[in-house]
Amino acid sequence: MNLRIPGPTPCPEEVLQSMAQPMINHRGPGFERLIQKVTGRLKQFFQTRNDLLILTASGTGAMEAAVVNTLSPGDKVLAVSIGLFGERFAAIAETYGAEVIRLDFPWGQPADPEAVRKALKKSPDIKAALITHNETSTGVTNDLAALSAVVKELDKLLVVDAISSIGSIDLPVDTWHCDVVISASQKGWMAPPGVAMVSISEEAWRFAARAKMPRFYWDLAKAKSSLEKGQTPWTPAISTLFALEKSLDLMAQEGLSNIVERHARVGKATRKGVQSLGLSLLAQEQWASNTVTAVQIPQGMDAKRLLHTLREEHKVILAGGYGNLAGKIIRIGHLGFVTEEDMQQVVEALRASLLKVGFKTSHLTDVRGS
Amino acid sequence: MNLRIPGPTPCPEEVLQSMAQPMINHRGPGFERLIQKVTGRLKQFFQTRNDLLILTASGTGAMEAAVVNTLSPGDKVLAVSIGLFGERFAAIAETYGAEVIRLDFPWGQPADPEAVRKALKKSPDIKAALITHNETSTGVTNDLAALSAVVKELDKLLVVDAISSIGSIDLPVDTWHCDVVISASQKGWMAPPGVAMVSISEEAWRFAARAKMPRFYWDLAKAKSSLEKGQTPWTPAISTLFALEKSLDLMAQEGLSNIVERHARVGKATRKGVQSLGLSLLAQEQWASNTVTAVQIPQGMDAKRLLHTLREEHKVILAGGYGNLAGKIIRIGHLGFVTEEDMQQVVEALRASLLKVGFKTSHLTDVRGS
Repeated sequence: MNLRIPGPTPCPEEVLQSMAQPMINHRGPGFERLIQKVTGRLKQFFQTRNDLLILTASGTGAMEAAVVNTLSPGDKVLAVSIGLFGERFAAIAETYGAEVIRLDFPWGQPADPEAVRKALKKSPDIKAALITHNETSTGVTNDLAALSAVVKELDKLLVVDAISSIGSIDLPVDTWHCDVVISASQKGWMAPPGVAMVSISEEAWRFAARAKMPRFYWDLAKAKSSLEKGQTPWTPAISTLFALEKSLDLMAQEGLSNIVERHARVGKATRKGVQSLGLSLLAQEQWASNTVTAVQIPQGMDAKRLLHTLREEHKVILAGGYGNLAGKIIRIGHLGFVTEEDMQQVVEALRASLLKVGFKTSHLTDVRGS
Repeated sequence: MNLRIPGPTPCPEEVLQSMAQPMINHRGPGFERLIQKVTGRLKQFFQTRNDLLILTASGTGAMEAAVVNTLSPGDKVLAVSIGLFGERFAAIAETYGAEVIRLDFPWGQPADPEAVRKALKKSPDIKAALITHNETSTGVTNDLAALSAVVKELDKLLVVDAISSIGSIDLPVDTWHCDVVISASQKGWMAPPGVAMVSISEEAWRFAARAKMPRFYWDLAKAKSSLEKGQTPWTPAISTLFALEKSLDLMAQEGLSNIVERHARVGKATRKGVQSLGLSLLAQEQWASNTVTAVQIPQGMDAKRLLHTLREEHKVILAGGYGNLAGKIIRIGHLGFVTEEDMQQVVEALRASLLKVGFKTSHLTDVRGS
């Protein structure tokens, strides 16, 4: 199978094999080496000197941790949303009693920094901004540098969902003054799901000291004090950390700038390939994501049948759309363990599947017959 | 290494190898088969027709899920504690604003059902009882059948931490009317940590419908509606589920009653072996756990040095004590992938290590020299 959803992503064979290592004591010296190494490597890829903590959870758990460790019920927060995962961030904050001011942009478009400035100025008692770096549901990457400049100009805490960007798309956490940044193992990190990571700035720790939202499992202060002993407060997902250790080795060999360039090349090739089939992209090129591409499905075409054909006849697994975009888009993941050749295969499978489900335009030529 | 802590436990080689399977789509038919199979098998081992839901988390996350899905801030709950994990349950409920009435028993002893009855009668507005089935910090198994009879006689919700018991020690969830029962993959299930499970009775769902504690990641109603589609609300720990699928296959081959009998034999053999060295157990035989044995360390002996010697010279990994018992006990895990022979090796290593750290009594004879 050619798994090309926006996470979980395929894992290199060495990464899969590394999980077959025997179990170890999570309170022993072997685990201490493991967690310190993985944490150190992640900090390099986060380009941060901030604390970085590892949670046994999927990315949504880390989103929840980001919220409950920095805010109190009644706190005003600006939730900048450009898609499903932006909405999720807002919903989590609301669940815990924050007063959420929503700033929604149309799905397929990025957030406008000027609109963010306006919203922050309008409610000066806003304490924090929740921002998605890369919106997995629409294939849009926000201009986080510009958004950060606005948020920091107005002296708010900046909480970033970088689940499907960091480690694949450039996100210099310290340079861009991101206070809380989260990701998850099954995205660009090329490891299985089950581990999430959170970086926390000193400013975020100051927020944490005052934050009154209830937290136990997600308590990052506990995670920090455990990490000082080379441990985690609760039993960690050891095998997933073995995988992450190996995948971070591979990533370190390639180097962050090479990885970012590869994702830029692969993203561009994917978009060009899809467009060469006569299909339209949801996002414009200038903000199109280099980790996930949302492809518009021609009116009248059955997206489910297309995905089914791709899977059953070509062993290519793509994702559908969420919410209002269900049935209207398909999404191609190209993050982590991926090359331009992989995407060429996807585009060819897409071409054949489109023909199969009856999509005929002058753009479409069956290369198999040529 | 001979990993004999009370979790993570060793995993059979087939279980470790199963994690090397390629990643799959968590919204596709392969995952649907996986989650339905694992859920079905777990329900058999839980001996329940209740819903059973799988979380990407360690056991503490499932404890939190049990609390926040059934209670509201201000609700009175009885927290019956016989050790560290009983205290943790109480702390979680307090964190979320429950009015916790603590009923603590001395570490090393079980809960007295009569004392529980008294406490419940004294505060008739108590809504739920939080009870540990098997206290991992002390090696004590509560008489859950008797405790359940009291809790149900007084018509309270029964929330059970069975993390280190169910699947190893008999716990017929439906027969004993346990409303919420939690466990975690790295215990008797012989799989790596990262997956937790929660069973929920119809009565617990009625509580959930009214419960006002905030929940998002832990929302079991979301998990239930996702499971109906063969999915999980958030990206699940797929590789750990591959492991659990394989280990549940192995457990099904052995059969629950055989597994429970094996743990009873192994537990008894461990206790006899330790006592044959002249050491005392923390728990009396009648309530000693069949999954973990707490061994008292002779006064003046350095428990850390003993554990270090066991690890470095015999490759046997045991655990220390928590809280007031730190330095006073060591704990031997014997759950999951374990035989009487494994425990015989542990006892022999313990004998040699005790001699090494200077423990000399008439009971101790060096079998290697005989």
